[in-house]
Amino acid sequence: MATAGKVIKCKAAVAWEPNKPLVIEEIEVAPPQANEVRIKIVATAVCHSDLYHLFEEMPEDGFPAVLGHEAAGIVESVGPGVTEFQPGDKVIPLFISQCKECRFCKSPKTNQCEKGWGVENHDVMALQESRFTCKGRKVLQFAGTSTFSEYTVVNMIAVAKIDPAAPLDKVCLLGCGICTGFGAAVNTAKVEPGSTCAVFGLGAVGLAAVMGCKSAGAKRIIAVDVNPDKFEKAKVFGATDFVNPKDHNKPISQVLAEMTNGGVDYSLECVGNVAVMRSALESCVKGWGVSVLVGWTDMHDFAARPIQLISGRTWKGSLFGGFKGKDGVPEMVKAYLEKKVKLDEFITHTMTLDQVNDAIDLMKHGKCVRTVLSVCSH
Amino acid sequence: MATAGKVIKCKAAVAWEPNKPLVIEEIEVAPPQANEVRIKIVATAVCHSDLYHLFEEMPEDGFPAVLGHEAAGIVESVGPGVTEFQPGDKVIPLFISQCKECRFCKSPKTNQCEKGWGVENHDVMALQESRFTCKGRKVLQFAGTSTFSEYTVVNMIAVAKIDPAAPLDKVCLLGCGICTGFGAAVNTAKVEPGSTCAVFGLGAVGLAAVMGCKSAGAKRIIAVDVNPDKFEKAKVFGATDFVNPKDHNKPISQVLAEMTNGGVDYSLECVGNVAVMRSALESCVKGWGVSVLVGWTDMHDFAARPIQLISGRTWKGSLFGGFKGKDGVPEMVKAYLEKKVKLDEFITHTMTLDQVNDAIDLMKHGKCVRTVLSVCSH
Repeated sequence: MATAGKVIKCKAAVAWEPNKPLVIEEIEVAPPQANEVRIKIVATAVCHSDLYHLFEEMPEDGFPAVLGHEAAGIVESVGPGVTEFQPGDKVIPLFISQCKECRFCKSPKTNQCEKGWGVENHDVMALQESRFTCKGRKVLQFAGTSTFSEYTVVNMIAVAKIDPAAPLDKVCLLGCGICTGFGAAVNTAKVEPGSTCAVFGLGAVGLAAVMGCKSAGAKRIIAVDVNPDKFEKAKVFGATDFVNPKDHNKPISQVLAEMTNGGVDYSLECVGNVAVMRSALESCVKGWGVSVLVGWTDMHDFAARPIQLISGRTWKGSLFGGFKGKDGVPEMVKAYLEKKVKLDEFITHTMTLDQVNDAIDLMKHGKCVRTVLSVCSH
Repeated sequence: MATAGKVIKCKAAVAWEPNKPLVIEEIEVAPPQANEVRIKIVATAVCHSDLYHLFEEMPEDGFPAVLGHEAAGIVESVGPGVTEFQPGDKVIPLFISQCKECRFCKSPKTNQCEKGWGVENHDVMALQESRFTCKGRKVLQFAGTSTFSEYTVVNMIAVAKIDPAAPLDKVCLLGCGICTGFGAAVNTAKVEPGSTCAVFGLGAVGLAAVMGCKSAGAKRIIAVDVNPDKFEKAKVFGATDFVNPKDHNKPISQVLAEMTNGGVDYSLECVGNVAVMRSALESCVKGWGVSVLVGWTDMHDFAARPIQLISGRTWKGSLFGGFKGKDGVPEMVKAYLEKKVKLDEFITHTMTLDQVNDAIDLMKHGKCVRTVLSVCSH
């Protein structure tokens, strides 16, 4: 390609500081270095973790940055040593890498690659090693991806090659939220056929968890949310029962216990709230109930009474639904193409990258499930 | 037998009120009613849960009572409807019943029988339905068992028949602590061959957990206790490394992480302290680490940061090591007779029932592993 080996000037949404709107800027994207891949982003969605970084976590040294990590695109060029990808490949950037060499990648039990950006001993592009500059300043990359940009550079261990037939404006959702919820039910909770499940929180992740429970053969899926407007959508993904905690003057765990003869077999917390995490655990049946933390938060402790576990419940958690990215994401793309998982139904709004702040506002106020931003045309 | 169908007058240690020494009294033990078994107790050990009831939990309506739940004896007589047991059978009373009919008993996933004394819908003799009287007052039964007595009456679903060759003064330990620790490693954590384990707290339960890890094939078993006197005993059961948190000025989880390249595969909390529960979880390796609550406490919350689970750790717990009593206890007795599990090495003191308060003092001050009280001769 004409751009290979050269700096690309392109459009990106830059977060200059916490708690402020993003600014559409022209940035420079350096060529990929050894083992890196430069990707033209075709579509990116806005995920709650972007907001978390922007409004809640706010690390002092995390700005300016380009957010965005749920996207799909096309390989523009590759750096030295990259043989797995070629220009033109359809890909999804991964915020959890899969090096296939570390002890975690070699274990079937986890998707926690030891070389990811989030660990000390990283190999993936770290926040401090960005390929972006803007107005003479280095602009950091977020979660090793940064997809609110027409072009980005990602380490090859953090890219999944997908079916060329995949519509990028749909499968971009598989870059985070949908895999996270679906996998939490299927891979982490390991929901069994005929079981009863409860999903707390009906955002995209929660709806994907409902879909995962349904896919795993759950007989009864209880959707729990304080916003009853979300129940109709949950039905689309397979929810059978609907509970609004505000409709009850007793603990939600007691409501669910009464509905299910003692509690559900599996519960999935898709809110990211430590009080809900406790309720979700307490809503499980003793003996074998499994509760999974899916929603992201890390500012407070979660807690419960020891008897909750001693009487046989299990508390788990997962990141990206336990999927190893290079293996799992292409499989989920295939499942979508074969109509085994839904994606279109999550998309409530479509916009362009220029409208990213409107998309963020929609998410902040719970007015959307997923907004997909078109970035570059094919 | 001459005593069948009659009230038996015999000796028992009665707890008249919380925080006071037990008093050896003559009590009356009524004949077994329908589905009940009256047992002559030959040997009973003192377990921490007895102390917990006496000194910590102290339910107002829990006294007077006969404590004790880790014992072995011989069936004296049976009530109507009992066909599984005959006078003369060697048995171990079970504080966790196994009715074999409820949904929990029918599930291979749990030992939480729905008809136990600890649940609402119980069938086992409940605390308020004792067969004991003393000086004209009803004396309550503890944990559906009450073994600090020459005779006790237990529901047939809470009795395990064991090999007639079993020495009762040894296998009595299988009534609680040893099964609890051993099973927590083998059944609940499901320790895998070649793995690295950490056991927090080296009382009888912790030592049994060490033995369970060893039996499951663990390569490395790190014994953790603030009392280094306990390390020698832990070695007997298979511990390979010894850590005293007092020797370090950093968190024990960090010490273990440095010893094990990131954390242990399995950790077992055998103290019953919520701060230790947290340390035990944090000592596990991300990705697949499993931490099990074994020590009993229920007065405070246990807690951790969500990232601990989201990064792939699992928090579990078990009661009685996950063993279904009627199935598991006879198997453990067999394993002892075949020298596959140790019991003698847990017994540091032997006394008579009259000396029960001395035995309680030894345990209270951490001066014993297990004290076995001989109660009746064969």
